[in-house]
Amino acid sequence: MIPIVSVVGSSKAGKTTFLEKAVKELKSRGYKVAVVKHDSHSFDIDHPGKDSWRLAQAGSDVVAISSADKVAVIKKHTRELTLDQLADMVMDGVDIIITEGYKGADKPKIEVFRSGVSDRILCSEQESLALVTDRHFDLDVPQFTADDANGVVDLIIDKFLNRPAEEEIYLSINGNHIGLKSFVKDAFIKTISGMVSTLHGTENAREIKLTIHLP
Amino acid sequence: MIPIVSVVGSSKAGKTTFLEKAVKELKSRGYKVAVVKHDSHSFDIDHPGKDSWRLAQAGSDVVAISSADKVAVIKKHTRELTLDQLADMVMDGVDIIITEGYKGADKPKIEVFRSGVSDRILCSEQESLALVTDRHFDLDVPQFTADDANGVVDLIIDKFLNRPAEEEIYLSINGNHIGLKSFVKDAFIKTISGMVSTLHGTENAREIKLTIHLP
Repeated sequence: MIPIVSVVGSSKAGKTTFLEKAVKELKSRGYKVAVVKHDSHSFDIDHPGKDSWRLAQAGSDVVAISSADKVAVIKKHTRELTLDQLADMVMDGVDIIITEGYKGADKPKIEVFRSGVSDRILCSEQESLALVTDRHFDLDVPQFTADDANGVVDLIIDKFLNRPAEEEIYLSINGNHIGLKSFVKDAFIKTISGMVSTLHGTENAREIKLTIHLP
Repeated sequence: MIPIVSVVGSSKAGKTTFLEKAVKELKSRGYKVAVVKHDSHSFDIDHPGKDSWRLAQAGSDVVAISSADKVAVIKKHTRELTLDQLADMVMDGVDIIITEGYKGADKPKIEVFRSGVSDRILCSEQESLALVTDRHFDLDVPQFTADDANGVVDLIIDKFLNRPAEEEIYLSINGNHIGLKSFVKDAFIKTISGMVSTLHGTENAREIKLTIHLP
């Protein structure tokens, strides 16, 4: 699977500023990056009077706008998406997904700590990949200053990105991610890539996406 | 496949206003609708200083923002997405995709015509599903006034939505949609849904999504 790392911390600890530096550094090293930001409020990305706003107001469940250089997709839903569902929406063509927030999700965490804003660490040693902090904690977790995004990026690359590419499969049923045991993964990958290889124009298949709707 | 219908017409012919009415009517009849809008300029959905803007500026290839009621995903790319690639991004859980623009794509068209803005019809009889027009054309195409979005919606439902649900499969390789012959579709659907049925928690599978990455 594409690695997912979460940047967490108290409000005003400096998560977005740290993320900006980390993204810049990952990009400068040639990686493709997706950032997923959790917003506890209902955000407004769209603006009154614009066509996309009018179409959302009219009731569209999904509004997408596509131009030569980017695409924006806005989906309404009644139940907040899980991180795995979000990952499924953003993972195409990226090497890593970094989230801002999602402290409750089961992913490795980089915690950003700033004295005065908070007086304690949110993550356990076990879930912490790194601490970005202005003072030292007596914990068995690598610690970095807020200026040292490069050090954190070295750690991320070493842990998650500096490995040989592997066959991977992601399965979801009715929008829910289904974990597969290793031999089941293997059976799905071998069967489906075998079937796909019988089709024309599939010689250099690196990414196979299949959606099946059943009545 | 989920039906895709394109609303086309000259600039200022009233495409967005017609779309608003059609979306409202489809929603009032209980359908889930996605709208895909083509923008020939580089649109700004994001705003200087906002976190999502900062993360895009830092170089993120994808920025997603998720809240309790909606999710927004903004992806940069170097080559404009085809309508089939866009459909793949928005089709989950919707009954119909309506596009604004995409005159060149191979989908049924609803052309919006307004005298004074234009003096000729853009679509051929063959590709036209309906004309929304303020004057009659001597063409074998159903014609409606701009006020009669309901009539157009009746036609859309009759043609595309009022049918028994069928098994469907959508396959893409390296981001390109691959059309499948009917017996190949059948082999894929039967094989994969058979494999999926051996897994726990897949009893009521209505939508199966699989992504495979090969090294």
